[in-house]
Amino acid sequence: MRFDSFDAIRSAATNLPGGDAAAAEAAAARQDTLTKPPGSLGRLEALAIWAARWQGQPVPRIERAQILVFAGSHGVARRGVSAFPPEVTAQMVANFAAGGAAINQLARSAGAELVVVPLEVERATEDFTQAPAMSEAEFAGAVSAGFDALDPRADILCIGEMGIANTTAAAALSAALFGGTGADWVGRGTGVDEEGLARKAAVVDAGLARHADALADPLRAAAALGGRELAAMLGATLAARRAGVPVLLDGFVATAAVAPLARLAEGGLAHAQAGHVSAETAHRTLLAELRLDPILDLGMRLGEGSGAAVALAVVKAALACHGGMASFADAGVATG
Amino acid sequence: MRFDSFDAIRSAATNLPGGDAAAAEAAAARQDTLTKPPGSLGRLEALAIWAARWQGQPVPRIERAQILVFAGSHGVARRGVSAFPPEVTAQMVANFAAGGAAINQLARSAGAELVVVPLEVERATEDFTQAPAMSEAEFAGAVSAGFDALDPRADILCIGEMGIANTTAAAALSAALFGGTGADWVGRGTGVDEEGLARKAAVVDAGLARHADALADPLRAAAALGGRELAAMLGATLAARRAGVPVLLDGFVATAAVAPLARLAEGGLAHAQAGHVSAETAHRTLLAELRLDPILDLGMRLGEGSGAAVALAVVKAALACHGGMASFADAGVATG
Repeated sequence: MRFDSFDAIRSAATNLPGGDAAAAEAAAARQDTLTKPPGSLGRLEALAIWAARWQGQPVPRIERAQILVFAGSHGVARRGVSAFPPEVTAQMVANFAAGGAAINQLARSAGAELVVVPLEVERATEDFTQAPAMSEAEFAGAVSAGFDALDPRADILCIGEMGIANTTAAAALSAALFGGTGADWVGRGTGVDEEGLARKAAVVDAGLARHADALADPLRAAAALGGRELAAMLGATLAARRAGVPVLLDGFVATAAVAPLARLAEGGLAHAQAGHVSAETAHRTLLAELRLDPILDLGMRLGEGSGAAVALAVVKAALACHGGMASFADAGVATG
Repeated sequence: MRFDSFDAIRSAATNLPGGDAAAAEAAAARQDTLTKPPGSLGRLEALAIWAARWQGQPVPRIERAQILVFAGSHGVARRGVSAFPPEVTAQMVANFAAGGAAINQLARSAGAELVVVPLEVERATEDFTQAPAMSEAEFAGAVSAGFDALDPRADILCIGEMGIANTTAAAALSAALFGGTGADWVGRGTGVDEEGLARKAAVVDAGLARHADALADPLRAAAALGGRELAAMLGATLAARRAGVPVLLDGFVATAAVAPLARLAEGGLAHAQAGHVSAETAHRTLLAELRLDPILDLGMRLGEGSGAAVALAVVKAALACHGGMASFADAGVATG
């Protein structure tokens, strides 16, 4: 889909399918027939029912999992907010292509197809302390790129990102959407020191002040403070909702990127699960704001979709039980 | 190995290999060269280093994962401590053989070999409120059965169990090893009501009183209050330590079963990780006593090795990253 304006995106994001309630009910009923004490698979049961709702079938399947990793470059990277230099974004895109990054291994381990989408990595967004990171047209273009990157035959989507300085962008966007200052939302990212942390907070505060008039509108805020890879994750997550594809979110940046969907429509992220909670402190805060309960808590803070990819294995385990277990009646097991 | 006495088991459990420190150091050094910010894979890095130590190689592998599920019947099952009747143990063993249980699906999902070992399921242990659950010879026989069930070619072992009433046995054994009363250690198990919970606590207290003279010795306590499947999990975990096979523990019963190893020798469970923390309340308490940090927290409470099998996917992801990622030097990525 080609979005050309905030209004076009807003329209697509406020008119969302609600999922298949009958499939979810049938999945829940099926769970209660399986050879286990009711509820004893815990979150695995909830994940199966969730997947049933969003895939629209009582016995959901994962045969074609897609991991989309979007990469973008940030004007604020020049402001000393990262432990790594800006050129690492392009270097890591090359590393993804060569198969050497963590997400390459995790995608193979989880049996998922990895697609990396660089978004004008050679051309950074504007420094948001000076100007909007992206114009309306640029932002809409990045959202469109994300939207179109979804494989419509996918039965689940993991989203992730790469972009030096993008935890600064995510912190600014989170503050715009949920209040607070830079200090409330910045963290160590790839590993900045105490001074770098203070710089990040100041940069976020400067961005919030510079774009005060944009903060009330989630999409304008995302254009002013975010980045192309964040916009693309929003687009892909929106496309997934419309195509009946459940989504596993990765860490802080991915969650911040899609948060505008929750602000634009009640239940706008109901088709998404938090794959994990990262070690980036603000991620836990953001998940609480969005009422998302992370599947994993492994102290990861890499991005690249890595937490979502590990969570994919848990969802696969959930669906394997849901689809493959015998019922009490079939197995001749007493129900207590 | 054929154990014929507490002393023989104690001797095997107090003379343990300490793991390969050089392999662990090499693995830690390798982690710091990989294309990610140092530490950013969190627990995945720690798991790779742990597996390196216990497999004795800097790049640990999982090509042959074994899941051992032991089943046993409990005399205390006649005392109304479970939501399910005792015959369900044998029915579930048949369900495992037919491929219909949760663990069958999870083993396939994780690419592991599942071996189910029924231990005289047709003959319950003694009711521990009346007599020791097992004689010394019976206990040693069950430990031996577990020891011998380990596939020595396995590169990781998941242990689990099936046995109606065995959360009562696990609660009693935990109280024996770590203090407290029945009320401190009993939980809902497969789903007992408030009255059943009170009965469980009273049964545990009666067992503790009946076997007061055995409680100071972890192995005598395990014989008096445990069960054959618990003894077998202890034996398998001991065999794994001696064979250089890292272990993933399942839930409350599995953890209680192997806890005597930690009481017999400092670091006796260093080769084991808690696959998850279950919804059985006392599991969290027990893990804290053992200083085990669970990999997953998914509200599961099924047993069967189910939590360990899901955690296996996380460990596989960890080793995939450790073994497959490029170094900064190889990938030409700047190190910040």
